[in-house]
Amino acid sequence: MRYPNGKIYQAQTQHDLPKIRKGKTTFSNRGMKLEDMINHTNKWYLLHDKAVIHKKPTPIQVVTVDYPKRSRAVIKEAYYKVASTTDYNGVYKGKYIDFEAKQTNLKNTFPLHNIHQHQIDHMKQCLHHGGICFVLFLFKARNEAYVYPIRALLEDWQAFLAKEMTAIPLERVQSEGMLVEMGYQPQLDYLKAVDQLILMEEKLGNNL
Amino acid sequence: MRYPNGKIYQAQTQHDLPKIRKGKTTFSNRGMKLEDMINHTNKWYLLHDKAVIHKKPTPIQVVTVDYPKRSRAVIKEAYYKVASTTDYNGVYKGKYIDFEAKQTNLKNTFPLHNIHQHQIDHMKQCLHHGGICFVLFLFKARNEAYVYPIRALLEDWQAFLAKEMTAIPLERVQSEGMLVEMGYQPQLDYLKAVDQLILMEEKLGNNL
Repeated sequence: MRYPNGKIYQAQTQHDLPKIRKGKTTFSNRGMKLEDMINHTNKWYLLHDKAVIHKKPTPIQVVTVDYPKRSRAVIKEAYYKVASTTDYNGVYKGKYIDFEAKQTNLKNTFPLHNIHQHQIDHMKQCLHHGGICFVLFLFKARNEAYVYPIRALLEDWQAFLAKEMTAIPLERVQSEGMLVEMGYQPQLDYLKAVDQLILMEEKLGNNL
Repeated sequence: MRYPNGKIYQAQTQHDLPKIRKGKTTFSNRGMKLEDMINHTNKWYLLHDKAVIHKKPTPIQVVTVDYPKRSRAVIKEAYYKVASTTDYNGVYKGKYIDFEAKQTNLKNTFPLHNIHQHQIDHMKQCLHHGGICFVLFLFKARNEAYVYPIRALLEDWQAFLAKEMTAIPLERVQSEGMLVEMGYQPQLDYLKAVDQLILMEEKLGNNL
């Protein structure tokens, strides 16, 4: 079942971009749309006993902490660190699940420049140890999402590094990836697509 | 092979406690001993292609961020959040691995008060979906570590909640848990103990 009228999606577009301003900025509600959708979906999966999948916290290097009397510790100086893994992992049907989520405003290609080498390396390692690894692509302008297997992405990445390719054509995403049902509850029902990926991996016997 | 003379262990005891002082404090090298040992071990496993297991970043609620011109963003106000999961997870032999690490200075019991309900809940959920879940107990005074299965801990936890038990006796840790080989490289070779746990789970057919 595809999401029928797009109302919910339209209603939340004000959250599409993080609220970042120069100077002092409140990040408490910066809600990226795709991240929110996945977090809601993961909560729904947990509540309905389907899977245990969580977003990893953003790694932060803490430099200075104050301990005011009778209150909790306040971090006064800290910096964002580059993550060494992907954003999401967990367990589903006994399988280790690991993925990164990416979105684009483009309609017909998915640019590769916002995928990072460390994410590729991490998913390749997890795949090698029998994990189920993919990128969840959201084409915002199409209101379509795909589970795109790391095996296909590794081919694209080679072409990207060789400067033969800058973006994955939609047709390839559609042929190599699995369409994700979008709805209200859960918003991005990606586990049904993951079921297909698990079947594919089991056929391959998980040989990288 | 057990670690023979304890030299390395002794040499690092100054890192056993985090360097926390009131007022402005540097956390850059607060190195908890057990966490360091596990992080080194996980790096060794990754390097030697045994498993992909990482510590999750500490969850931090960022409130204020400064963007100085021509420099990276500086977090000026943030707070530690309570984690909703355990500290470590990853993939090994196609299995989802999830664990928490705890240490004690006591010789003959492991107190339950520093294990938290959310950690129990999370590991129980992961076990239910086929994950391999345990607590890595370090008895510092004995220089012994054990992989203690979540199934045994769940029984202890019931007794703890019923106020029938405050600590797990060493004999129970030794009979229900698997001794971890301690050495130089890797420092805490817990995957060999995990191999035994995987066999136990496979015999049980993973029914909670």
